[in-house]
Amino acid sequence: MKALVYVTLKPDVLDPQGKAIVRASAQLGYDAVKAVRQGKLFELELDAADEAAARRLLDEFSDKLLANPVIEDYRVVTIEP
Amino acid sequence: MKALVYVTLKPDVLDPQGKAIVRASAQLGYDAVKAVRQGKLFELELDAADEAAARRLLDEFSDKLLANPVIEDYRVVTIEP
Repeated sequence: MKALVYVTLKPDVLDPQGKAIVRASAQLGYDAVKAVRQGKLFELELDAADEAAARRLLDEFSDKLLANPVIEDYRVVTIEP
Repeated sequence: MKALVYVTLKPDVLDPQGKAIVRASAQLGYDAVKAVRQGKLFELELDAADEAAARRLLDEFSDKLLANPVIEDYRVVTIEP
């Protein structure tokens, strides 16, 4: 199965990388870009009997390995056969 | 407007970070995870008159600032008012 997982900083965690992109974009003339937050995207291939099993695996795996639950949220976006 | 942009390594570019995650997951007992590729996710807020203008801006901005077009692809996933 294929799955897509987002890992993003929690809303109250500062994102200096996003702020740097906004500053750089203003210097390049892109004043229309008001805010940027950067996250991570994971494309996974996994063995699972069905979607429910895949979701259980992904929840555990994302919490343990992909995200740092102190400062990050994860979201399983798609699961495809 | 709010927009979501994916930036991923081109398919023929190696992803050592993804490979490291697969190795670590095997050591932690997650043998079901067969492959991982890591990309970037950008959540943007921008000023644009309409969706077409937002898409033009995002295409230019992603190509110039968010992605390195030599090794990365970008994709504008959603544009919301």
